[in-house]
Amino acid sequence: MRALVINNGLRLDTDYPVPVPPAGEALVRVLRAGVCNTDLELVKGYMNFKGVPGHEFVGVVEQAVGREELIGRRVAGEINAACGKCETCRANRPTHCPNRTTLGIDRRGGTFADYAVLPFDNLHPLPDSITDDQAVFIEPLAAACEIPDQVNIRPTDRVAVIGDGKLGLLCAQVVALSGCDLITVGRHADKLDLLKRHGLVTTIDLAAIKPASLDIVIEATGTPSGYAAARRLVRPRGIIVLKSTYHGEITVDLTKVVVDEVTLIGSRCGPFPPAIRLLANHQIDVEPLIQARYSLDNGVAAFEHAAQKGTLKVIVEM
Amino acid sequence: MRALVINNGLRLDTDYPVPVPPAGEALVRVLRAGVCNTDLELVKGYMNFKGVPGHEFVGVVEQAVGREELIGRRVAGEINAACGKCETCRANRPTHCPNRTTLGIDRRGGTFADYAVLPFDNLHPLPDSITDDQAVFIEPLAAACEIPDQVNIRPTDRVAVIGDGKLGLLCAQVVALSGCDLITVGRHADKLDLLKRHGLVTTIDLAAIKPASLDIVIEATGTPSGYAAARRLVRPRGIIVLKSTYHGEITVDLTKVVVDEVTLIGSRCGPFPPAIRLLANHQIDVEPLIQARYSLDNGVAAFEHAAQKGTLKVIVEM
Repeated sequence: MRALVINNGLRLDTDYPVPVPPAGEALVRVLRAGVCNTDLELVKGYMNFKGVPGHEFVGVVEQAVGREELIGRRVAGEINAACGKCETCRANRPTHCPNRTTLGIDRRGGTFADYAVLPFDNLHPLPDSITDDQAVFIEPLAAACEIPDQVNIRPTDRVAVIGDGKLGLLCAQVVALSGCDLITVGRHADKLDLLKRHGLVTTIDLAAIKPASLDIVIEATGTPSGYAAARRLVRPRGIIVLKSTYHGEITVDLTKVVVDEVTLIGSRCGPFPPAIRLLANHQIDVEPLIQARYSLDNGVAAFEHAAQKGTLKVIVEM
Repeated sequence: MRALVINNGLRLDTDYPVPVPPAGEALVRVLRAGVCNTDLELVKGYMNFKGVPGHEFVGVVEQAVGREELIGRRVAGEINAACGKCETCRANRPTHCPNRTTLGIDRRGGTFADYAVLPFDNLHPLPDSITDDQAVFIEPLAAACEIPDQVNIRPTDRVAVIGDGKLGLLCAQVVALSGCDLITVGRHADKLDLLKRHGLVTTIDLAAIKPASLDIVIEATGTPSGYAAARRLVRPRGIIVLKSTYHGEITVDLTKVVVDEVTLIGSRCGPFPPAIRLLANHQIDVEPLIQARYSLDNGVAAFEHAAQKGTLKVIVEM
């Protein structure tokens, strides 16, 4: 099969072996996959990953021994393949299973390929009301849904999302559902326009927001300056949700975290069912985030495009 | 009056002016005061504080114009003098008032002196069942009570307190009240014995605790190694309460905080009423923490004693 392969850089392999699903797993023919910043980091060496990247996808089940009703279904898939047996899994935290593999990220081939393999339990059949393009956003939208799953965001809360990248724009739309007093801070007026169209408040002028005035700040840039901005904006006893990973360690003034009694919450993968429901109900607008499309044959070019500063979602079609 | 004064080091002044209470504030004759690590930091230059340190105290009200019923009452006092008018005060977060002064820490003379001044609303008259010695611990015990005020600690939670200093020993006793499965990790068997006496589980062998096994970790050392231990012990989606300030900034791997979805909660001053109630009901044992007593005349020696590594509470008597 065709596959993009990371091994000291990224290349297209046209004769990569089709993965063979073990018991309890399905073979999925990939229809489309989205390029995530994590994919770009993997190419640079993150996680020391070798193999096929890709974890935002929509596909059709082709083999599912013992769960034949899945065959032919169009699915999205949760990316963490948990063991189901350990203490963490039994405590219903499978995305943190210490024995997990992760689709296209950690010891499991991903979806920039004609086929990928995932456990039955990771697959979510999709309603027809969700297009293939929309379905590619289910995984990052689920990550955005993790925020209200962790923090009670109330209509009386003053909230900022910092970052107008792909994840920031999804987080802003999800957080806005709470009815809170939300402002999204970014650097690109054109990206923020995607939110303005839906009546959301945005700004490119961070300094216009009063310091220590916000109850909750969502940090979706993954940069030290984004963290610094979040610390400056959050009120004493407020909450900062860390929604993006950072390049290496960063220096944090924990004394000020103590003195101001701030709460920092790390936030990663989220629940698929609400993401699917929100897309099916047209409550989240994702298609304007698509900036380019490439065929899998031109997948290396797709990654190069996605790596250009300021690019939103690049879709690869199989 | 007599007072210990910080001004490039610490000295005893026997002719320091008695503070004059403004409207709404009381003059308190100090009976006893405890030396806190913060006091030792102030001597080294923390907060650029100049004046009289001291914020853990018991005293008797001598003047209270307009609140004469306070006169003659034995009191403990909350250390943050808030403005009562700003947005933060109106939101019932007076300990975070941006206009606050702080007793013996920030622009308000403290209690290593014959007299100190505090707003009426900061004073808590004490029942006779609390001794003067016990009363000196109300302020740090209130800080320990801030932990369950911020985090719901359940009987099913596995919890560690890291640190067997003064604050750690108080935190452990307060956290134990929840009925959780608690272990306190320290470096001094003799200090941990104070907890063992009350049936609490302790260890000096950090490595004996399984990594990523604890629901909640209270970091009460204020050291990078204490933070590292907390990160190692807490499970994914677990909570670390940062109960102690740090010397300068420390480097934190926020990516791992995100990936493990850990929550970090800064925790500082706490509520006095439960601390007073717990002492009055003999639910917390503080007197074994007293390691030495000095008269105010020998207050400089008291600070020197308190600064010796491993010293628990040093009390200054007026």
